[in-house]
Amino acid sequence: MYSIDYLTDFTFQVFNKIGCSREDAQTITDILMAAEKRGISSHGMIRVKDYVLMHEKGRININPEVHATRETPSTAVVDGDGAYGMVAAKKSMEIAVDKAKNAGTGWVTTNNSNHFGIAGYYAMMALEEDMIGIAMTNANSLVAPTHSKDKRLGTNPIAVTVPADKYPPYVADFATTPIARGKLGIKGKNGEKIEEGFVQDSEGRSSTNPDIIKEGGAILPLGGDYLHGSHKGYCLNSIVDIFTAVFSGANFGPFVPPQVPFLPLPDNQVGKGLGHFFGAMRIDAFEEKDEFKKRMDKWIETFRASESAEGQPKVLIPGDPEREMEEKTRKEGIDVLGPVKKDLKEIADKLNIEFEEK
Amino acid sequence: MYSIDYLTDFTFQVFNKIGCSREDAQTITDILMAAEKRGISSHGMIRVKDYVLMHEKGRININPEVHATRETPSTAVVDGDGAYGMVAAKKSMEIAVDKAKNAGTGWVTTNNSNHFGIAGYYAMMALEEDMIGIAMTNANSLVAPTHSKDKRLGTNPIAVTVPADKYPPYVADFATTPIARGKLGIKGKNGEKIEEGFVQDSEGRSSTNPDIIKEGGAILPLGGDYLHGSHKGYCLNSIVDIFTAVFSGANFGPFVPPQVPFLPLPDNQVGKGLGHFFGAMRIDAFEEKDEFKKRMDKWIETFRASESAEGQPKVLIPGDPEREMEEKTRKEGIDVLGPVKKDLKEIADKLNIEFEEK
Repeated sequence: MYSIDYLTDFTFQVFNKIGCSREDAQTITDILMAAEKRGISSHGMIRVKDYVLMHEKGRININPEVHATRETPSTAVVDGDGAYGMVAAKKSMEIAVDKAKNAGTGWVTTNNSNHFGIAGYYAMMALEEDMIGIAMTNANSLVAPTHSKDKRLGTNPIAVTVPADKYPPYVADFATTPIARGKLGIKGKNGEKIEEGFVQDSEGRSSTNPDIIKEGGAILPLGGDYLHGSHKGYCLNSIVDIFTAVFSGANFGPFVPPQVPFLPLPDNQVGKGLGHFFGAMRIDAFEEKDEFKKRMDKWIETFRASESAEGQPKVLIPGDPEREMEEKTRKEGIDVLGPVKKDLKEIADKLNIEFEEK
Repeated sequence: MYSIDYLTDFTFQVFNKIGCSREDAQTITDILMAAEKRGISSHGMIRVKDYVLMHEKGRININPEVHATRETPSTAVVDGDGAYGMVAAKKSMEIAVDKAKNAGTGWVTTNNSNHFGIAGYYAMMALEEDMIGIAMTNANSLVAPTHSKDKRLGTNPIAVTVPADKYPPYVADFATTPIARGKLGIKGKNGEKIEEGFVQDSEGRSSTNPDIIKEGGAILPLGGDYLHGSHKGYCLNSIVDIFTAVFSGANFGPFVPPQVPFLPLPDNQVGKGLGHFFGAMRIDAFEEKDEFKKRMDKWIETFRASESAEGQPKVLIPGDPEREMEEKTRKEGIDVLGPVKKDLKEIADKLNIEFEEK
């Protein structure tokens, strides 16, 4: 078990040592640690080694100038300049928030970026300004459109946050697939089968093998099969791909570059890097702030008061599980998996900084 | 089989005769007919009788003044003034498009409205202006949040349109549930069972009875059960509820008024009518128009070129099935179900206009 401070210091040192500015190293660290604190370890320390190796491979610009290339009063297109995704994304969300201050809403689409960690972080930035926040990203293709055997889309998450008054904010942050890549990996390592409705094999037949992606299989869109509405999941997932990449000029669909150093870039790139989309809406564009927040309180109360089905846990408001996890990790610290500890030690030794495999 | 012109004339006469202005009657007719043409008969002629009876019950204002009550450069809150949903929604989308002309994007949330037909119609209005269109609405509660046995949400659809160049536009228009209310009704009438993953009974147990809603059951969110990501469907569905009703001051969740005359209004209304949300984004806010449309063409080509899985039909672009249906109905006309013909004849007789049950 590690304290939050220990991992924060270590991560900052890693990115500062490879040449990121103190500010950028802090941004990357904050967002990786936000994932760990919120219990989303698939987007935390496990990424540090790959991030460093992506730089070593020349696929990250550690001295980027993230900047807007096209603007209207409520929009901007941002060139991420090949930065670590966190650096491009945080700056982009700041621009969205600034636009919203003047125009009521702000919308930014970002190209030439990389893996940005948890989408929820950027959507939550809006809360501090009494705004609704939205963040999306595309990702390298693992998901087959309905009826297809080809991988064409990423797990393309959407995050939406809405401030409330006496209750914690509404924070939805979800992949547009029934299962995340990380969960499949864990099932595979444990030699477990999975239920139907998550993946298909290389011919597009339903599969229960969690390792099927390595054999040419694909993740299904949210909904699972066509009968159960996978075409709706495909719509949702492709909306994210279009908003993040067709809008911005990033790579879309199967052209999105993988965010691990051992996989090559796809041929025939159609844009620059991967893409994000951010939104910020002032709540007082819709209603006086206090009144808006009270309405949201009433919404939260209404849904929290739903009666649970037989044998089921309580009905949650989006954001509840991650907030509960954050309270726990603040007290108890953060557990890092054995193989991840080994990776971090390897990086530490190479960079000549300290890391204790405890 | 009816010609499109015949049903269009008839529907216009109905709404004009009950007192709607010619303009409003035309709007309602256009949007009901758009549903019929696109093969979404659940949102077409089947609604005419209920719409008329809703007016007779005093639940519709047929001489509304739909107007903005709060504005920023990129946003407006619109009071639908109790209008038929089509009248409030079309005006709201026009305001969104106007805002986008100046601010790059326009976002409108509408309260005090009613059932607005197909969401896709409003999102498609943006295409004529070289804009991306978005439309959402909430609806009376039929859907249980994950873990709950209570109905708390509507089938809350989302529509998103994106213009292309040489190909028809991308038009996604989908309920955030695995099955629509209308389809359950048809299965029920035919005495068929349905597969698991669509509905639950009054205790929250999985059910295969398509009539279970009448016995206190509920539709599940997209994803089906928690294991297969129904909490993501719940997030998506609740985002629509919040954007359409918490933003606008309409009724949300279980307080949304039913859009049929034989069900009473829920007690303790928390807002006015039901709510919508509209968005319009200029494509040249993101890229030169021609370049943007070519990118979208490339996206469409990429996805259309996906290879089909074994035994499956071709991979579609959202909007394909409805456009193919529209080509068919233009040639062949529109079939109206027997009971719907009876309803239309009844309304025709009452209003002293002609309707042939052919």
